[in-house]
Amino acid sequence: MKKLWSKRIQELEAYVPGEQPKDRRYIKLNTNENPYPPSPAAVAAMENAVGDTLRLYPDPECTELVEAIAARFGLEKNRIFVGNGSDEVLAMCFPAFFDSDRPILFPDITYSFYPVYAGLYQVPYETVALNEDFTVPVEGFLRPNGGVIIANPNAPTGIALPIKAIERIAAGNPESVVVVDEAYVDFGGETALPLIAQYPNVLVVRTTSKSYSLAGLRVGWAMGDPGLIAALNTVKNSINSYTLDRVAIAGGAAAIADAEYFGSCCERVIATRERSMAALRELGFHCLPSAANFIFAAPTKIGAEELVKKLREHGVLVRYFKKPRIDGFLRISVGSDEEMDALIAAVKEITE
Amino acid sequence: MKKLWSKRIQELEAYVPGEQPKDRRYIKLNTNENPYPPSPAAVAAMENAVGDTLRLYPDPECTELVEAIAARFGLEKNRIFVGNGSDEVLAMCFPAFFDSDRPILFPDITYSFYPVYAGLYQVPYETVALNEDFTVPVEGFLRPNGGVIIANPNAPTGIALPIKAIERIAAGNPESVVVVDEAYVDFGGETALPLIAQYPNVLVVRTTSKSYSLAGLRVGWAMGDPGLIAALNTVKNSINSYTLDRVAIAGGAAAIADAEYFGSCCERVIATRERSMAALRELGFHCLPSAANFIFAAPTKIGAEELVKKLREHGVLVRYFKKPRIDGFLRISVGSDEEMDALIAAVKEITE
Repeated sequence: MKKLWSKRIQELEAYVPGEQPKDRRYIKLNTNENPYPPSPAAVAAMENAVGDTLRLYPDPECTELVEAIAARFGLEKNRIFVGNGSDEVLAMCFPAFFDSDRPILFPDITYSFYPVYAGLYQVPYETVALNEDFTVPVEGFLRPNGGVIIANPNAPTGIALPIKAIERIAAGNPESVVVVDEAYVDFGGETALPLIAQYPNVLVVRTTSKSYSLAGLRVGWAMGDPGLIAALNTVKNSINSYTLDRVAIAGGAAAIADAEYFGSCCERVIATRERSMAALRELGFHCLPSAANFIFAAPTKIGAEELVKKLREHGVLVRYFKKPRIDGFLRISVGSDEEMDALIAAVKEITE
Repeated sequence: MKKLWSKRIQELEAYVPGEQPKDRRYIKLNTNENPYPPSPAAVAAMENAVGDTLRLYPDPECTELVEAIAARFGLEKNRIFVGNGSDEVLAMCFPAFFDSDRPILFPDITYSFYPVYAGLYQVPYETVALNEDFTVPVEGFLRPNGGVIIANPNAPTGIALPIKAIERIAAGNPESVVVVDEAYVDFGGETALPLIAQYPNVLVVRTTSKSYSLAGLRVGWAMGDPGLIAALNTVKNSINSYTLDRVAIAGGAAAIADAEYFGSCCERVIATRERSMAALRELGFHCLPSAANFIFAAPTKIGAEELVKKLREHGVLVRYFKKPRIDGFLRISVGSDEEMDALIAAVKEITE
């Protein structure tokens, strides 16, 4: 089977995304999708993009999307790079910024795609152990390294670092690129965006998959110094001139421009999260403080793995990571109030 | 600017796609787009995919699209890999199949993205000189190598190799993967698809950008032995779980299923190509025999570079490659009959 594979990928272990079930209808709280539909303005823009003009290539510079991001965040266009979801943007950071002679650093418990990217691009890495309370220890990132990646808020813990902590890491690593993966920042985190003007080594990565309700469209972006953006464009233009199709460019731009709709969805998710965490705590769960659209919660009356299995039987999907330190937790995406009520009811039925 | 760039990309020269002009309306014969709109069935499927379900991630396995390809070409699903345009599929072939200790081989005149991919993935390569008549010399690919890529029909010449020639290359390289880039095959080439059952080292790569009128949607695929497909999936799942958005999966699947519409568009393009080549020859052009949706033609009454510039002033864009051996040629995409008439008229005005 692997006879004709390159040596590089013989031992590679690819990332496994959360399940997209096809067997029956579930209450799907396993992949951090937004329970609310995308902005009506985004839907209208996409409908408008579907048609005869699809015979033509997209704009390789995605000007419309870059301009929407520039306007929304008050940035010049040369500080913005766009890609096919933040996963692709993060993947491109590896060949762009990380060489293979110095290890890069990321937390031991974080987005599990980081070591996969490192494997593919043959970049050595070391992990920094989270503190006992699952917070990120800033000091751990102040040793020599070839780059840093921090998810902030972190996944799957949901815990956010203040901007001062990110600034210490940036200031302590002037020779390394510090990638701040802000996939979840809109649900209560503090963005590192104000740092990019002062620190040419800070790159902030975002996505429309969570807070913009567009996981199905694949639009992500990075913001940073024009030098970092030029590096990402060099990598992108060595792989694929057009990573975003015409529909994604139009829909992403309209969604990002519709700040009011975005804000109201984020507020609703945050309100539901707080309400759900209170209910879970009443049922004896230990919940980490979440600044994301998910809750990382450890049951006390039943084992986590058993609970995940029983929830599935009750028609509720959550995510479970069978890994040291976090194998007692479930990661529960924040759905609608009705979905969270159904989750709570199922937990009660299972544990009482 | 490049201070924080990885060593790998410091000297990288990215690919430059054909111009997508924004300054005025042109007759656009420079990027090999199809003059006809996409299949109405594809447009309907995409319209149906735009809506609330975009809040959910796409199917990471793109089952609907893979099944449409399987049905159309009579293949099992494990012989099909899909990606974000054939450029992305080709890019992923490099880390999947090519190591850095043996040079891969491709023609000296071919799709200019191949050396760019090699640069990014640090794969050494050697080029094989085309024959005097711009045909691909099969013997050149029978020396020791770490892999082979052949565009068939070749770009920008448009000349096709018969399947027997591809088979000789496949049979002569059992230890190497032979990638056959069939972006243009539907306009008169002979596909290598019948070889994949017998030769586990042959990978056939296709796109919806040309013959399916969906350049703006970004859908490409590869067909080959399940071992090759598994390697590509390992690479893809080490970069991005979801390279195709929900709209692209739906539109690509419907376009590929609509064989009748596809066939009629291809026939029209071929008829226009033949008519246009006859007219160009009458104007003194030397045209290579084309099995693609473009014409590679050398003017004799005026220099090629000068003609390209003057055509632009006349509102007609064609592509020009300032490279040894081909700097006397224009690559003219086959547009509608009206567009080609306008091109011919402009050439007459310029040269007579």
